[in-house]
Amino acid sequence: MRILILGIDGYLGWSLANSLSDKKFSIYGIDNFYRRTWVKEMHSVSAIPIASMEERITAYKKEYKKNIEFYKGDITNYGFLSRVIKKVHPEVIVHFGQCPSAPYSMMNQEKCVWVQQNNLVGTLNLIYAVKEFAPDAHIVKLGTMGEYGTPNIDIPEGFFEIEYRGRKDRLPFPRQANSWYHLSKVHDSNNLQFACKNYGIRCTDIMQGIVFGFHPQAHVSIHELNTRLDFDEAFGTIINRFCCQAVIGYPLTSYGKGTQIRSFLPLSDSMQCIQLVIQNPPAAGEYRVMNQYANVYSINDLAMKVADVSREIGINVKVSPIKNPRKEKEKHYYNPHNENLKKLGYHPSTDFDEEIKKMILRLLPYQKRIMKYRSILKPTIQW
Amino acid sequence: MRILILGIDGYLGWSLANSLSDKKFSIYGIDNFYRRTWVKEMHSVSAIPIASMEERITAYKKEYKKNIEFYKGDITNYGFLSRVIKKVHPEVIVHFGQCPSAPYSMMNQEKCVWVQQNNLVGTLNLIYAVKEFAPDAHIVKLGTMGEYGTPNIDIPEGFFEIEYRGRKDRLPFPRQANSWYHLSKVHDSNNLQFACKNYGIRCTDIMQGIVFGFHPQAHVSIHELNTRLDFDEAFGTIINRFCCQAVIGYPLTSYGKGTQIRSFLPLSDSMQCIQLVIQNPPAAGEYRVMNQYANVYSINDLAMKVADVSREIGINVKVSPIKNPRKEKEKHYYNPHNENLKKLGYHPSTDFDEEIKKMILRLLPYQKRIMKYRSILKPTIQW
Repeated sequence: MRILILGIDGYLGWSLANSLSDKKFSIYGIDNFYRRTWVKEMHSVSAIPIASMEERITAYKKEYKKNIEFYKGDITNYGFLSRVIKKVHPEVIVHFGQCPSAPYSMMNQEKCVWVQQNNLVGTLNLIYAVKEFAPDAHIVKLGTMGEYGTPNIDIPEGFFEIEYRGRKDRLPFPRQANSWYHLSKVHDSNNLQFACKNYGIRCTDIMQGIVFGFHPQAHVSIHELNTRLDFDEAFGTIINRFCCQAVIGYPLTSYGKGTQIRSFLPLSDSMQCIQLVIQNPPAAGEYRVMNQYANVYSINDLAMKVADVSREIGINVKVSPIKNPRKEKEKHYYNPHNENLKKLGYHPSTDFDEEIKKMILRLLPYQKRIMKYRSILKPTIQW
Repeated sequence: MRILILGIDGYLGWSLANSLSDKKFSIYGIDNFYRRTWVKEMHSVSAIPIASMEERITAYKKEYKKNIEFYKGDITNYGFLSRVIKKVHPEVIVHFGQCPSAPYSMMNQEKCVWVQQNNLVGTLNLIYAVKEFAPDAHIVKLGTMGEYGTPNIDIPEGFFEIEYRGRKDRLPFPRQANSWYHLSKVHDSNNLQFACKNYGIRCTDIMQGIVFGFHPQAHVSIHELNTRLDFDEAFGTIINRFCCQAVIGYPLTSYGKGTQIRSFLPLSDSMQCIQLVIQNPPAAGEYRVMNQYANVYSINDLAMKVADVSREIGINVKVSPIKNPRKEKEKHYYNPHNENLKKLGYHPSTDFDEEIKKMILRLLPYQKRIMKYRSILKPTIQW
C-alpha cells in the first residue's frame, strides 16, 4: 500500500512513518521543514534532540529494511505537489502538512493571515491534485476537536440528525472554533466535505484531541528514529509542556480556573487510530468524520496527574495557575462522542498515568536542555 | 457618517455610493478594478456601458454636490488597507471587495485557490485593520444565501435554538455551500463570528439572495452614474442574464429541470436593506446575521416570468432548458426566514414583474451591444 505523508518531518508525521514500518506499506513523504523553523522562531528546541531527514531515512532503512521516498517541498506549490502525486500514485495520503498552532496564529495580523492562507491553500491543492491525478486515493486529513468549540450539547462525529420546526435533516454539526488556526481547520472541513460531494473524492477527516507522549516505536537507543517533542507555548501541547516543566521542577502553568475540559490521547493511540483509518477506507465520494481521543479531562485534573506522577518518581512540582492568556469558557458542558473509531477496533489507552510516567522518565536525561530554554515556558501570547 | 465602501466600482458598490447621496453620508471608496478585468477575461462587457472611476466621481460631484474620496488599491495588501482606515476613520465599512462568482471559482485549480485566498485574506485584513485602527466601526459584510445550501429544514438567520439528546443550545446554523466561491463566504462568516467574540468588533453579515436590476437612482440621462450590469455566465446573475437574453430573443438558458428554488431581490431592495443595516448598527462584539431577499422562486418560475413580461413588450422568447452544468439538488425543500430586516423596516418589493419589465425596457437600446457578445450566453463552466 503506497502511503504519502504530508508533513513527514513533524511530531505526528515522523511518528507515523515509524508506525508503518511493516513492509506492506511503501512510505513516501513530503516536508518543507517549517516546523523546525517555527520552533526556532519561538526561541525553542525539541526537548529530545532530533536528527536531520537524511539521517532519519538512513537509520530507518537500516532498522526496518525499507526506504522512505522523500520529496522536499511545499504543498502550497501546486506544481510541486501534483508532480509528486503523479509520480507516487498514492493509495492513501495522510495530510499533516499544516501549521498546527493556535497561539502562533494569534500573535498578529501577519501570522493570522499566513496560517490561514498556508493551511487553506495546501488542502485546496491536495484536493485538486487528488481529483486530477489520484482520484481513488483516500485523503486522511488531520483536523482537531478544537473545531467544535464547547457547545452546550453533545458533540457528535461531524454530523447530526436534528428536528427543527417540525422537519428533520442530517446536517454538519456547527463548528465554533476559538483561534485563527482552529478556524483554518474548520475551513478545511468545509472544503473537503464539498470536494467529496462534488468530485467523488474519499476522505476521513480526523477531529483529533490533544496528543501527548512519544511514539511506541521510539527506539530510545536509535536517536535518529525519535520524533520531536516541543514545549514552547506555540508548538508544545499541554501535557508535553507540563511534563517538560515537571522534569525541571518548574511550576505547572495551568491557565485560568483550569476547569476547561478538553479531550486527549497518547501519541501511541493516535498512531493506532490512523492505522485503523488507513486500513478501512471510506467509499468514493464519502466524507467521514472521526472524533479521535481517548479521555476527557479538565486542565486541573491533568496538572494534578502530572504533579502526582512526578512526586512518585521523586520530583516535587507545584501546580501554579496563571491568568488565562486566552479567551475561552472556563466552565462549560463537554461531551464529545467517539464511537466511529471504536467501531473500527480502536482500544483507547486505559492507563494515562502510566503514559505520563513513561514520558517524564524519558525526558529526565534532558533536564539540562529543557532548563536552558526555561524562559519559554511562560506564555506570552494573549488573545 | 463616514462610510467606506470596499469594492465601490462594482455592481453593488457603485449603486450603494449613489444610494447614499444624502449629504449626511461622507463616502470613501476602495477598488482595484478587478471586476472590470474578470469580465474582460470572460470575453464579455457590461450590458450597459460604464464610465471610468474618474468620470464617475466627477459626475457624482456635479449631481450630488459632494465628493467621493477614492483610494485605488487592493485590500489583500494590509499596509494599504490599514493606511486608508487610519486616515478615513470610518464609522461603517461596507465590504463588497471580493470575487463574487461561483462559476469563476470552479473553472480550475488556479481560480479555486485564487478566489478563496483573495476573499479570505481581504476579510482577515479588514478584521485586523478594524481591531487596530477603527475598533468601533461597523463592518457590513456581504455574504450570500448560497452559504446555507438547501437543507431539508427551515433556514433561520445565521443561528438557531435546537434540542439534541435532551440538551439545548443556540448554535450557528450549519452551512452547506456548493462552490469554492460560496465556501469562501462561509469561511468569512466563521472568521467574522470569531472576530466579534474575541475582539469586540461589531458586524452585520448579510446573507443576500440573488440580486437583479438597476439601482433606483440610475439617472438614465447621466451615463457616468450608471452601475454595471453583467450577463456572462460567471459575473451575470440569473435574472440579469435572462433579461439580456430576452432583449435579443435568445432562448432563456434554464439549467436542468429548473425546479431549483432560490431567493431573489431587486437591486433597489438590496440598497434599501443595506441603508437600514447601516443606520441600525449592532452592539460592540455582536455578530448579527440578516437573510436579505424579497421573494423565493424556482428557476422555471423566473424564466416564465421573464418570457411573459417580454411577450407583453412585444418580444417573443422561448425558455430553453439546458443540461445543468452544476451539481445541485433540483428537487428540494426551501424555506429561509427573513424577519430581521423586516424588523428594521424593510418593505420587500411587491411587484417583481414590474421590476423585470423596467429592466428589459432599460436594456432594449443595448440590443446590438448584447448581440455582439451573444456567444458568451451559453454556459461552458461545469462542475
